[in-house]
Amino acid sequence: MQELLAQDTEIRAKITSIKAVANFDKAEVEVLAAQLKKVKEAIAALNEADGAERKQIAKFRAELDDLLQRRFFVVPSNEIYGGTAGLYDYGPPGCALMSNLQSVWRSHFVLTEAMLEVSCTSMTPEVVLKASGHVDRFTDYMVQDTVTNEYHRADKLLEERCEQLAAEDTKADPAWTDAIAIAAAKAGSMNKEELEAAIKQFGVTAEGHPVSDVTTFNLMFKTSIGPTGKSVGYLRPETAQGIFVNFRRLYEYNNRRLPFAAAQIGLAYRNEIAPRAGLLRVREFPLAEIEHFVNPSDKSHVSFASVRDYELVLLSQAGQEDGRNTTRTVTVGAAVAEGVIDNETLGYFMARTHMFLRAVGIDGERLRFRQHMKTEMAHYAKDCWDAEIKTSYGWIECVGHADRSAYDLKVHSDCSKANLSANETLEKPIVVKKLTAVPNRGALGKRLGGQAPVLFAALAAMEEAPLKAIADELATAGQATVALEAGAVTVTKDELTVAEREQKVSTVSYLPSVIEPSFGLGRIIYSMLEHAMYARPDDEQRKVLRLTPLVAPVKIGLYNVTSSIAYQPVFAAIKAAAIRAGLTYNEDTSKASIGRKYSRGDEIGIPFAVTVDPESCDPAKAVVTIRERDSMTQIQVKIPEAVEIVRGIVSGDLTWEAAYEKYPKFNFVDNDK
Amino acid sequence: MQELLAQDTEIRAKITSIKAVANFDKAEVEVLAAQLKKVKEAIAALNEADGAERKQIAKFRAELDDLLQRRFFVVPSNEIYGGTAGLYDYGPPGCALMSNLQSVWRSHFVLTEAMLEVSCTSMTPEVVLKASGHVDRFTDYMVQDTVTNEYHRADKLLEERCEQLAAEDTKADPAWTDAIAIAAAKAGSMNKEELEAAIKQFGVTAEGHPVSDVTTFNLMFKTSIGPTGKSVGYLRPETAQGIFVNFRRLYEYNNRRLPFAAAQIGLAYRNEIAPRAGLLRVREFPLAEIEHFVNPSDKSHVSFASVRDYELVLLSQAGQEDGRNTTRTVTVGAAVAEGVIDNETLGYFMARTHMFLRAVGIDGERLRFRQHMKTEMAHYAKDCWDAEIKTSYGWIECVGHADRSAYDLKVHSDCSKANLSANETLEKPIVVKKLTAVPNRGALGKRLGGQAPVLFAALAAMEEAPLKAIADELATAGQATVALEAGAVTVTKDELTVAEREQKVSTVSYLPSVIEPSFGLGRIIYSMLEHAMYARPDDEQRKVLRLTPLVAPVKIGLYNVTSSIAYQPVFAAIKAAAIRAGLTYNEDTSKASIGRKYSRGDEIGIPFAVTVDPESCDPAKAVVTIRERDSMTQIQVKIPEAVEIVRGIVSGDLTWEAAYEKYPKFNFVDNDK
Repeated sequence: MQELLAQDTEIRAKITSIKAVANFDKAEVEVLAAQLKKVKEAIAALNEADGAERKQIAKFRAELDDLLQRRFFVVPSNEIYGGTAGLYDYGPPGCALMSNLQSVWRSHFVLTEAMLEVSCTSMTPEVVLKASGHVDRFTDYMVQDTVTNEYHRADKLLEERCEQLAAEDTKADPAWTDAIAIAAAKAGSMNKEELEAAIKQFGVTAEGHPVSDVTTFNLMFKTSIGPTGKSVGYLRPETAQGIFVNFRRLYEYNNRRLPFAAAQIGLAYRNEIAPRAGLLRVREFPLAEIEHFVNPSDKSHVSFASVRDYELVLLSQAGQEDGRNTTRTVTVGAAVAEGVIDNETLGYFMARTHMFLRAVGIDGERLRFRQHMKTEMAHYAKDCWDAEIKTSYGWIECVGHADRSAYDLKVHSDCSKANLSANETLEKPIVVKKLTAVPNRGALGKRLGGQAPVLFAALAAMEEAPLKAIADELATAGQATVALEAGAVTVTKDELTVAEREQKVSTVSYLPSVIEPSFGLGRIIYSMLEHAMYARPDDEQRKVLRLTPLVAPVKIGLYNVTSSIAYQPVFAAIKAAAIRAGLTYNEDTSKASIGRKYSRGDEIGIPFAVTVDPESCDPAKAVVTIRERDSMTQIQVKIPEAVEIVRGIVSGDLTWEAAYEKYPKFNFVDNDK
Repeated sequence: MQELLAQDTEIRAKITSIKAVANFDKAEVEVLAAQLKKVKEAIAALNEADGAERKQIAKFRAELDDLLQRRFFVVPSNEIYGGTAGLYDYGPPGCALMSNLQSVWRSHFVLTEAMLEVSCTSMTPEVVLKASGHVDRFTDYMVQDTVTNEYHRADKLLEERCEQLAAEDTKADPAWTDAIAIAAAKAGSMNKEELEAAIKQFGVTAEGHPVSDVTTFNLMFKTSIGPTGKSVGYLRPETAQGIFVNFRRLYEYNNRRLPFAAAQIGLAYRNEIAPRAGLLRVREFPLAEIEHFVNPSDKSHVSFASVRDYELVLLSQAGQEDGRNTTRTVTVGAAVAEGVIDNETLGYFMARTHMFLRAVGIDGERLRFRQHMKTEMAHYAKDCWDAEIKTSYGWIECVGHADRSAYDLKVHSDCSKANLSANETLEKPIVVKKLTAVPNRGALGKRLGGQAPVLFAALAAMEEAPLKAIADELATAGQATVALEAGAVTVTKDELTVAEREQKVSTVSYLPSVIEPSFGLGRIIYSMLEHAMYARPDDEQRKVLRLTPLVAPVKIGLYNVTSSIAYQPVFAAIKAAAIRAGLTYNEDTSKASIGRKYSRGDEIGIPFAVTVDPESCDPAKAVVTIRERDSMTQIQVKIPEAVEIVRGIVSGDLTWEAAYEKYPKFNFVDNDK
């Protein structure tokens, strides 16, 4: 579709440019017009297909939502009171999934890279968020429905209006079509005046009602700390600030060595104006953030070699400029070498993020890295890449990777007056050229007496710029005036020389740059669930979640085939072994058929079902079966082996395929079908 | 001291009662007066000793605070901006300790007991906390310093004033002395009027300044959800409410079976008026709460046998009534049998909490369970026991265990109109006697025509109380009036009989009771650190934290004895093994002596130091040493064994003593001393 729209734009541009010339070639225009017609037809066909696809997507999403609520993965908070938009509670499987995701993150990043993990308060005094810019700029534009008094995000209403206009577009006026497309694309980055103009131009309403003027709304939850009512506090909109204000302590903890990375997992809060899009835009959500501090003049990464040949799908600025969103698959090494990714550290983290997302079950085909356009980035940012995951809501930003330069440490250093710079002892001292004042101490001492030492000290402490001014004055006028506290002193060029001298420098001091990978864990979990849900070809109704054993909320389903057997001692042995191995289990001793029990387990993504049948209760045999969720293949193993096999697969020491090779197969017939 | 003060009170009471009789025996009074003098002397001696002890405690606390800040366990939040009272950030070792504590909790409770863990939002709409009673009653009383305008908790100022008056008490007026003691003990539970009276009576000031009238302050942080300003939200003051409002979903998830327990780890917030006492009274803190739902008429616990013989130190209501705080060590089984602990489930959780606290390193000698006095408990609570840990701040409540009856489900069910009751299918139907209306259908049908079926339906649906009224009316007046929607109908005793009939009941419906163990994780961590810090007899300056390997933030210290050896390949091998085993490590390759490196590790409680020396780099030997922190004993092992040994000890599969027996010993001489 992108391709077709781009062709459409291109052909129309050609026609326009041809027509701009007097006596243009009508035949040529006709050829182009014919091409244009074909493109328009193709677009119309696609739009119709889109309609079918949209229905398909809506069905998929409804099925997933149903599963997530019914099996208590995630439900609206305070549901019995009608819920609150943008607030969701995680039930047992959702909570375990989140907890497992955080464990994997900790192991993959904090443990493996020896990061300094911290946990800072979410309640934040105003001074911190004033310094960071959030009090002034962490805002959205909103309008009010003049009939219902409901508030809406101005950009979202505009986008919806543009979508509607584009669908209805029968004017066949290329200028109008372009204007709609441009407004839709730019809505999110428009300022107040632009939004107001666009609302007028396109007749934006809220469900048919006129809307108010555009106002600004700060997205931070505001409260008051302590009883005075004078101490303003906000709930943090990101966890990063806690790391920045603790930079000094972290630097000391790391024995004053750079680079190092600090990490934090914690809640962040955003008071969204009108949250929709379910789990993707919520008011309270866990973030996992890394702040990697480096020398701004050396952003190489010690482990870069390990990712040099790792391939990523990149959607660079260049790929977006022509509107075609052309991605390309390229190694991290090549992307950094070409300058597409700004530096090694940024590239290193993008690769590590990719590995992490793949390990927790994100489909590699629905994963790309999109570079921010220059206009999207904050003025201080050097380069930004979002890991985007494709879901039924489109491509969703799930992990940001930003080179934030030294901006954060700079503003906090300025506002708090704390020294947040790093000192580096150079391995070899370097020689730098520096303007230096060399006074004729004898002559000046004689002439100025007690004032001479004061002059010498002032000259020694003088910065480059004033020294340069004095040098220029001496050169042009033969004398110069030096301001001292007790009054100015005039010196001649015989009494003072200012010249460049070489100096040995053995330590450098600088504000470190920050490279920040920031993970929206809730969005990742939602994407994991979308990518995990499927139905077997022969059974469209029953859903299965193919969550990886590593993150699956429950590792073992423990079932009895019938309640007529003495299954309890076998259950007890397996449960005790599971607890020792740290593996979660769900037991289902209901009277449901074993096939039904498997289905219930499949629906919450339990990777392995351990089933106790009459042979399990026969001391001479003492075997149970293990069923793998996705292949539905089964093996028969001795009771004590069952948990050990699952533990091995969950920890990555073993694969199901290897276990399936090794143990006797077991054929299960589902009498339930 | 408690003992002496009680004797003092007792003797004075005796004297008063003797003197109350005319012609009392002066000799007897003299004997008692002599006893009283001795007791007073003993109190004075103890007070002096207390002074020394207080100095000792102050020194200990200053040393711990210094260690915790210097080694970045915990620091004031936003320190570079001057910090905010009651807000603290966890640095790397503190954060790891918290994370480990939560893992152990999850394993000990959630995994082992198959609890349903949930994660609910901390942002809570007003309606929920209005129902729970927090909007109206989650308050403290405060007064304002009329000179500085600072706010203080009224009860705390009164307690301090009482302490001061008691110390200065020279009036020798027993009534006055008693009044001071009573006010000090009751301050925390006084209402507004009582506090105001006491403030006047005892001349309470704020650092010498007069104070304002007493006002009420709600301790919840208040904010506004969404842009309207009309939707009030609070940050939850406890995590429990999220579980209660989700009861229905949890009950369904558990296949409608009771009892079951839900659990939650999450942040809670309290806007303390004037937080002091460092980490023990903070404004944002993690809680770990369990809500165990049971049938109110059966609070037995399926695993009670496993704790029946487990001993606890109990400070019961009886032990507190005489002011002597007499504890006794008793088995959980005996305490429940005697009715000291109300029921098995409460007793079971108290024992499990004790095991948990011991496992994470709380000293058993400084751990007791204090029962709430009847006046302390909420009106709905059946029984409450706090696990108290002794610290330099005295006995601190760290885990509450409360039988909250069905209060929470009742208020949410009433306010939300949601059905939060449980239905239980009885194994054997029971027979109950119930008033039943038996209408004479023929006679009534004839007389009333179409209205008769309406009457029959109304009678069948009628509750016990109105039926009883009709029965009485029939008995006394021979006829009775039944109100129907279409008007009242009068029936005679020939037309209607109301009598007790036996009915078979096979399901019962009830609101479950809740038994709640609630863990203040921050307080537990602070207590763990207090109990862990010690200095070796020969080295008072250097502190050691004897954190258990299970919770220690860093498991392995990785050190080289000298930088002149090629230690890097050995380091790389050990680090890779540690990452695979999930064990945190700190490497120290500085030029500090090995003794100094050990000390640095001891200070943050690293249990095992793995040291690389020239023999490690010799391929023919390839051995490293492992040093255990508290015994300072060392063994020499092959490189690949080192991490495996530490892993074994951390997971509980191995002890240091066993490893020490098995491997060659190594004698280390600390040249640093």
